[in-house]
Amino acid sequence: MSYQAPLDELRFLINELVDLEKATGKNDLVSDDLVFSIWEEAGRFATGVLEPLNRPGDCEGLRFEDGEVKTPAGFVGAYRQLTEMGWNSVGLPEELGGQGLPWLVSSPITEMFSSANKAFNMCAGLTQGAIEAINLIGSAYIKELYLEPMVAGRWTGTMNLTEPQAGSDVGAIRTRAIPQPDGTYRISGQKIFISFGEHDLAENIIHLVLARLPDAPEGVRGISLFLVPKFLVNDDGCLGNRNDLQCVSIEHKLGIHASPTCTLVFGDQGGATGYLLGEPNRGLAAMFVMMNAARLTVGMEGVASAEAALQKARAYAFERVQGSKAEDPSTAVAIAEHEDVRRMLMLMTSRTRAMRAMAMVIAEAQDLCESSDDTAESARQHTFVSLMTPIFKAWATESAVEVASLAIQIHGGMGFVEETGVAQIWRDSRICPIYEGTTGIQANDLVSRKLLRDKGEGLSLLVAKIRTTLQESQAFATELRKPISALEEALNSLEGCAERIIALGDSGIENIRFISVPFLMLAGNTVGGWLMLQCAVRALQARGSERYAEQTLESWRQSAEFYSRYTLAEVHGLERQVLNYLEDAAAAPAADIFRY
Amino acid sequence: MSYQAPLDELRFLINELVDLEKATGKNDLVSDDLVFSIWEEAGRFATGVLEPLNRPGDCEGLRFEDGEVKTPAGFVGAYRQLTEMGWNSVGLPEELGGQGLPWLVSSPITEMFSSANKAFNMCAGLTQGAIEAINLIGSAYIKELYLEPMVAGRWTGTMNLTEPQAGSDVGAIRTRAIPQPDGTYRISGQKIFISFGEHDLAENIIHLVLARLPDAPEGVRGISLFLVPKFLVNDDGCLGNRNDLQCVSIEHKLGIHASPTCTLVFGDQGGATGYLLGEPNRGLAAMFVMMNAARLTVGMEGVASAEAALQKARAYAFERVQGSKAEDPSTAVAIAEHEDVRRMLMLMTSRTRAMRAMAMVIAEAQDLCESSDDTAESARQHTFVSLMTPIFKAWATESAVEVASLAIQIHGGMGFVEETGVAQIWRDSRICPIYEGTTGIQANDLVSRKLLRDKGEGLSLLVAKIRTTLQESQAFATELRKPISALEEALNSLEGCAERIIALGDSGIENIRFISVPFLMLAGNTVGGWLMLQCAVRALQARGSERYAEQTLESWRQSAEFYSRYTLAEVHGLERQVLNYLEDAAAAPAADIFRY
Repeated sequence: MSYQAPLDELRFLINELVDLEKATGKNDLVSDDLVFSIWEEAGRFATGVLEPLNRPGDCEGLRFEDGEVKTPAGFVGAYRQLTEMGWNSVGLPEELGGQGLPWLVSSPITEMFSSANKAFNMCAGLTQGAIEAINLIGSAYIKELYLEPMVAGRWTGTMNLTEPQAGSDVGAIRTRAIPQPDGTYRISGQKIFISFGEHDLAENIIHLVLARLPDAPEGVRGISLFLVPKFLVNDDGCLGNRNDLQCVSIEHKLGIHASPTCTLVFGDQGGATGYLLGEPNRGLAAMFVMMNAARLTVGMEGVASAEAALQKARAYAFERVQGSKAEDPSTAVAIAEHEDVRRMLMLMTSRTRAMRAMAMVIAEAQDLCESSDDTAESARQHTFVSLMTPIFKAWATESAVEVASLAIQIHGGMGFVEETGVAQIWRDSRICPIYEGTTGIQANDLVSRKLLRDKGEGLSLLVAKIRTTLQESQAFATELRKPISALEEALNSLEGCAERIIALGDSGIENIRFISVPFLMLAGNTVGGWLMLQCAVRALQARGSERYAEQTLESWRQSAEFYSRYTLAEVHGLERQVLNYLEDAAAAPAADIFRY
Repeated sequence: MSYQAPLDELRFLINELVDLEKATGKNDLVSDDLVFSIWEEAGRFATGVLEPLNRPGDCEGLRFEDGEVKTPAGFVGAYRQLTEMGWNSVGLPEELGGQGLPWLVSSPITEMFSSANKAFNMCAGLTQGAIEAINLIGSAYIKELYLEPMVAGRWTGTMNLTEPQAGSDVGAIRTRAIPQPDGTYRISGQKIFISFGEHDLAENIIHLVLARLPDAPEGVRGISLFLVPKFLVNDDGCLGNRNDLQCVSIEHKLGIHASPTCTLVFGDQGGATGYLLGEPNRGLAAMFVMMNAARLTVGMEGVASAEAALQKARAYAFERVQGSKAEDPSTAVAIAEHEDVRRMLMLMTSRTRAMRAMAMVIAEAQDLCESSDDTAESARQHTFVSLMTPIFKAWATESAVEVASLAIQIHGGMGFVEETGVAQIWRDSRICPIYEGTTGIQANDLVSRKLLRDKGEGLSLLVAKIRTTLQESQAFATELRKPISALEEALNSLEGCAERIIALGDSGIENIRFISVPFLMLAGNTVGGWLMLQCAVRALQARGSERYAEQTLESWRQSAEFYSRYTLAEVHGLERQVLNYLEDAAAAPAADIFRY
């Protein structure tokens, strides 16, 4: 069974959950038909071009020889098609040569491409981040030379943060940048875990590299950002000499076998030529712009893996005949008829829907933030996105691994055999809770910055939205009894735990960090429950409208029902985990309980 | 870091949690020193011989050519050492040539060997199961010819159940057995997923094959068991002609790359020669003896994977320096100092301890069952083992995947790189919730047979044991306040849910099956909490005894404390999941809620 873009799901969400016109302020570009024809076209590209290379790419992997990386068969051609059709630049501004699509339209395309071929899709995603950073802080000269070929996809981009001693602790980086009389810098050092740090898809690779100037302050306040091209670029835009950097090895990984993870050595011959981007010692702030965008993209990769896994599991469950029902023991049935398989399918479906709905409300806020003329409104949307970023990144990616694991389980023994492809989805998905900041890092960001530093401002916005949905749902108090009551309980848990965390504050930060991950998961489950209820309300409102098949509307109600009974039920356990440490904080510091 | 047998853990459990002398009735064999010297020796074999082949075996994998399977380099030699030293037969009766060690002594050896090299260790485990089945129901002639070389390890054994159309539904098998005038049978059919169905470790392979006699009743009541050797065996025990069966392919799998998973075709040349084992049409009962033993072994593989993952994660967490603490930002610390890493380490440690403790009380019951002269007592122990088998198999294996995933998470980006070995543990562990009956199958066994059919008899035994521990713990009501109260709550949840399930009975079986997995997990978490409390009580009792380091005793208290605050907290969520379906059973059948 080949991957199919989830167009019905997207149609419901874009029409019922979010307000595309209001979010973008453009009613011409975003008329229904145009959006759907873009998505249909993207879906065809995903199914026809990207997915056929997914398993072969995983099996063949990459070849590394003499500092060069050869991607699997077909990748070069697919990349050429991608860029010729402009799929690599759908979300980039039109003034840069991109398609200028709003987040609400471009995010689902990211999902589709990542579902079809996660490893391949990473290259264009990283390039987009690099383009945004250059556009934000690059000099006119740099922008003039670099942006056009990068937007066109002839050159790709990378993020160079990690070093052997500097992973989650970016402040520990040692790569050095020595100023030269001509205004350039000599860069030397080693970077590891650089995705698409070397490959054969494009003519040039533009590395954005964090490094330290001489006499820079220690830690994160002494880091600057440099643009370091693989091939130097002459003033006329033509490629010049090879720069002094090389890929010395690639990793042998658990998953995303077709995505090169490179160790890059800069300056073996005296120093790679680099160009300062933005202010000296202010590199981390710029990198964080990229990083936050990348975190949302990784969350979207989670949605993508879950959707791909769900499609395979559903197809298998309805095709595989095994066992019978008690009422008719002589007739073999598809395993989708068996209760526990149905439980798993419902869990996968409702969770994937909640993940995608979360992606959509974040994209809507991003669009509102960018389109609004009202500074205060724009700031509010930004605050909401900031709050949701760690929740979405961590919760959606942890959920993706779980959904992929359930897809293996539904396949039984066949799930452990690589040819069905679900094992690959599980392996590929496992990087998502790690890269661009682990789940633990996201959870610390949530409690330290988004709750404590911001005094719960973002959370209040979220809570207000949830309350609005709860009010609206009263019109369907009977049909949605359980989703409403379970969400009310979950919201109480979320608010109660958040209040305690804020009350403990910095003095209790150690105890808080012990339970920051369960708290984040509690928040993720609750937000998912809010969105499933919102979708169910819309589905009930749309009954009889002939816009959707009755079965479609009913399925949204079912998802809310299941989600509230199963995934919101977990909130009770998560709340206990949190309170079991916060309640005794004074009497029994977590540090004592967690001694090891 | 190389694997080390968890001897300190085992020393505490064997001395404090169980009563080896009482369980086996033998005080000579099982004097402390002998047991520990056996375990030390086994640990040396695991560390010195088995583990060095683990990652190379995973990387090299198997070669399949012309129907033959070549195991990775070193496996043939290691297997020879294993059998020469008698490690393959530690649990087999002395009268068969085995070492006759009780379960309490042999199970930890299974754990060690599987921790060190899960793929390799499967071969001897399967052989042991086949020996037990032959010994149970084989004719004198069969036993005479086959048992000695199998116990010696010169020949190995397999279980042949699965066929393409018959996985979880064993009743659907089609392999045929035609009686011959000489008393043998001609076997023809195809079997899939046969572990070690073909390999180069031994001279002969003895397949135990489920097949149907002509005119056998349909379904599970028409299945017979046959012994089908790869090479026919002459009356003098020498190998004769090659039998008419061949390995036609092996699977390309997610994990256990060094364990051949074979498709076997029987009877391509007219029929493989087979020998009936036991009564016609009664094959499934015999196979279930093997299967139940295999389920416990798979649960033990879960313990093994968790221990291996924990050792790697702990070593990495104390070695990897990254970031600093708030109170001293200028000093980098090992990541084990960071709160979320400690949470993960404590979760892994306490869960692994609970899993191993569960294995030990099951092994104790097996020993009591076999050693007791009192039939009623023996039956009680059997009932307890029967109840615990699905719980241990499913809960310990699901836990193992989770613990292995946490080991990846603690390693950060390095966890996704295959060279650290944690990715392999995660991949290898993923088969455990699938083979020998999926988690869903175990959960159905628990609710359908162990609760409903047996009217909760096994559960009462379990509850009584838990209550005894709760009583005993009152002597430490202050020190163990939280572990006690959390276990009391969890026990109430377990009993409450079980009562509802039994009350609903067969009429509500459909609703029950929707939540059989959450119910099983609730039971597993609760049993783990019982055993962690029991260990903590023993640790507090042993204070000042000089038998253990104070730190060791304290670590058991810590594990109980953490487990009660974290893993028992999950019971609240699991209970909600169960009750959310059982409570409304009449008003809203689960089948409606789970419609898809």
